[in-house]
Amino acid sequence: MQSERIIMAHGSGGRLSQRLVAEVFQQAFANPYLDQMNDAAVLPPAQGQPALTTDSFVVSPLFFRGGDIGKLAVCGTVNDLAVTGAAPKYLTAGFVLEEGLLINDLNRIVQSMAATAETAGVTLVAGDTKVVERGSADKLFINTTGLGFIPEGTQLNPLQVKAGDKIIVSGTLGDHGIAIVSEREGLSFSTPVSSDCAPLNHFIQGFLMPGVKCMRDPTRGGLATTLNEIALQAKVGMLISEEHIPLLPAVSGACGMLGFDPLYLANEGKVIAIVAPEIEARVLALMRRHPLGRQASAIGTVTSYEPGLVLLETVIGAKRILSMLEGEHLPRIC
Amino acid sequence: MQSERIIMAHGSGGRLSQRLVAEVFQQAFANPYLDQMNDAAVLPPAQGQPALTTDSFVVSPLFFRGGDIGKLAVCGTVNDLAVTGAAPKYLTAGFVLEEGLLINDLNRIVQSMAATAETAGVTLVAGDTKVVERGSADKLFINTTGLGFIPEGTQLNPLQVKAGDKIIVSGTLGDHGIAIVSEREGLSFSTPVSSDCAPLNHFIQGFLMPGVKCMRDPTRGGLATTLNEIALQAKVGMLISEEHIPLLPAVSGACGMLGFDPLYLANEGKVIAIVAPEIEARVLALMRRHPLGRQASAIGTVTSYEPGLVLLETVIGAKRILSMLEGEHLPRIC
Repeated sequence: MQSERIIMAHGSGGRLSQRLVAEVFQQAFANPYLDQMNDAAVLPPAQGQPALTTDSFVVSPLFFRGGDIGKLAVCGTVNDLAVTGAAPKYLTAGFVLEEGLLINDLNRIVQSMAATAETAGVTLVAGDTKVVERGSADKLFINTTGLGFIPEGTQLNPLQVKAGDKIIVSGTLGDHGIAIVSEREGLSFSTPVSSDCAPLNHFIQGFLMPGVKCMRDPTRGGLATTLNEIALQAKVGMLISEEHIPLLPAVSGACGMLGFDPLYLANEGKVIAIVAPEIEARVLALMRRHPLGRQASAIGTVTSYEPGLVLLETVIGAKRILSMLEGEHLPRIC
Repeated sequence: MQSERIIMAHGSGGRLSQRLVAEVFQQAFANPYLDQMNDAAVLPPAQGQPALTTDSFVVSPLFFRGGDIGKLAVCGTVNDLAVTGAAPKYLTAGFVLEEGLLINDLNRIVQSMAATAETAGVTLVAGDTKVVERGSADKLFINTTGLGFIPEGTQLNPLQVKAGDKIIVSGTLGDHGIAIVSEREGLSFSTPVSSDCAPLNHFIQGFLMPGVKCMRDPTRGGLATTLNEIALQAKVGMLISEEHIPLLPAVSGACGMLGFDPLYLANEGKVIAIVAPEIEARVLALMRRHPLGRQASAIGTVTSYEPGLVLLETVIGAKRILSMLEGEHLPRIC
């Protein structure tokens, strides 16, 4: 049983597909919507504006310190909803499996998705599985799509951001990137770094209030790329203070050794919030009360300098341009 | 430009990713929701019950007579919504690209998705792109997830199906399966077979009325597998008449030659409707009025024989059990 592997017939749509669905997916995710087993899940009418987001996950390796591709697939999509102010409610999952994948590995990943979905309070209502020949995919890819609802009155939008607003990050940067690269390259550090992979929706609900203007989760491309995107959309400048950027010593050590800049490394459990100056202290205090926000830090200010320009003030007081990620950094990080 | 290829940096989340999104995806799909370019698309409040479905597409080859993976990805998801009685509204698309894919091929596929989405009247509101190393995927996989809304009063459910109900299929079976296999194997027939790949939502709206109890689109696994699924869910038997099953002569010829049973071949533009006997003639007439339903045919009756048992009455009057697809049939058909 442990050594059973995925074969092409698991993707036929016939009896073996149904057995895989019943034994692996329905087992883990059982709920009244998924159990309808119709071509689409029919959900109860809901209040508020629907928010919809999608992400495909191709992270390599499948398992890493602090998570796995399944946990990541749930967190990534939950977080994309949460940063728009939506309460994530429903998930779909599409699997592309490579012939030869250990069913036991699939099972571990699916169990991890189910546990993470439960933590986040989202229900997986629809799924799909395809199988491709050995060599036509790398083990397993997962797409998750999320549907949430934004309560009336909540409106987050980069267009509300203006000079004087404060930039807060909810914790240490680059943990996920370094966790993946260590796993992949077989590096070991005296203090191993775990991925920060976590669903942020409950955490975000704890500090979401009028005056929070825009949130993002700095995944691929890291803090630097995300700030550049917001600055471009909002047509504002930004000034970030290097000394206020929270970093684990192990991450900053690994970055030095490997030549990575932590500001471009992916995070999977952090949020950037841009808030009106008068609520900065309150948001920070609320974040720090939650286990996911203990190291929250105010890292900079929105400016009226050149629109789209993000400047970093270094610890020795020099200013340099923090541009968007150019070229390739770390492939298959999520 | 024609020969430009996807490189790993297109998946970095940085500047090249953004350029790909702007030049390929936003170009084709531009609309106010996608153009928000936030982590999730925020949609207007909607009436009715949400219906949600997801499908990953791994069809090989990418282009075939009658369609391509992009058209298929839109039709497949639109149709899964439509057969639940939902009006499909929004789509998301997640792409996994293999390093080395021709950007020109990607462009053709994306244009085809955009054209099909327009025909179906659905809006692509969110997307995601990942790139994996050469050899870690086969050119291109697409996940589409669809959100639609079911108008109040519409309720389709296999549990409503009962003995005496009529089974209607909207047209010829197996066209998609034979189109793919011909393309893949380089077979040419005197009358080439095109995939039936089409969005069914407008067609279905034309005959949806009280008394239509359950609909399915017979994709992977074909008519036989789909009828078995319904029979199991509804705990009814079925008796199907072989002579009433519409088949293109070219498909039945190809099946004979290649040893396929058309009742197990995938369809991508057909619907099976199970209806109360008193509306059978009306539904058939309405289907036949539409270009997608010209060859609609009543193929059988729901029975009170052994629950879950689907019987086929052959042209010579023998009855045989039509079981669910066993083993592998045609891999990567969708």
